[in-house]
Amino acid sequence: MALTDLTSPNPDSPADAGGAALARAECAVTIFVCITCHGGRPLDLVPVPGAALAEATERAAAGTGVTVRRVRCLANCNRGLSAAMRREGGWTYVFGYLDPAAAAETLIDGAKLFAQAPDGLMPWRGRPEALKRGLIARTPPFDFPGEPE
Amino acid sequence: MALTDLTSPNPDSPADAGGAALARAECAVTIFVCITCHGGRPLDLVPVPGAALAEATERAAAGTGVTVRRVRCLANCNRGLSAAMRREGGWTYVFGYLDPAAAAETLIDGAKLFAQAPDGLMPWRGRPEALKRGLIARTPPFDFPGEPE
Repeated sequence: MALTDLTSPNPDSPADAGGAALARAECAVTIFVCITCHGGRPLDLVPVPGAALAEATERAAAGTGVTVRRVRCLANCNRGLSAAMRREGGWTYVFGYLDPAAAAETLIDGAKLFAQAPDGLMPWRGRPEALKRGLIARTPPFDFPGEPE
Repeated sequence: MALTDLTSPNPDSPADAGGAALARAECAVTIFVCITCHGGRPLDLVPVPGAALAEATERAAAGTGVTVRRVRCLANCNRGLSAAMRREGGWTYVFGYLDPAAAAETLIDGAKLFAQAPDGLMPWRGRPEALKRGLIARTPPFDFPGEPE
């Protein structure tokens, strides 16, 4: 079974990631940006690339309803820059190999798509390419009952 | 800053992962085992290595207070076998490169250690080596307020 099958039970869900600011109820998305990631750049670079990405993502989130939080280390150090994305009642995704120049807008586009998904999974169709290639892991919602034996 | 610094704010916390069954309140740990992981083994292998690991982990969890749930794909496919571990009010960890023969006991040992941590982080000291080497990512607790700017 291909990853696209496993992560896209809703391939026909709407892929329009644009539109107005999100309703906050039931679909609020939080992006956690790792502010300690260097992404292979020199360790003494200032600002730290992850911190710069956090700031850019905060700016890109203005007016969208997406929450951005800074976090010290997502433990994805060898695959940075890194961010995680969580939706209320939904799955949590970790992304790596993010482009410092483009990832802020990419993350917000992904968050908008995620917020609109009916099933708490980020759709594969319409997902920004960098959030396909850079997918590191996903974890289930808090109340996930588990698959049957 | 080294990863051990970032992930071990409590290096002096108790590293004794043994002891009696865990109290379930406030420190319940859930392990999510990916049942679709092949871990580089043939795709037609039966049982699927991830499913076999899930079953072994369920057996190893008996009487410990640790909950084991099966999940279809943690999207860590290239780094399987895979499992995630979450603690109530704590962080969520994703582990990869798990040894099909040893990982069930390793995951339970890690879960016991995690359950005893006072701060919701899995201690680095005392953590099974496979859960150091195989650390893929971690994500914050649901109510994580974010680091200050």
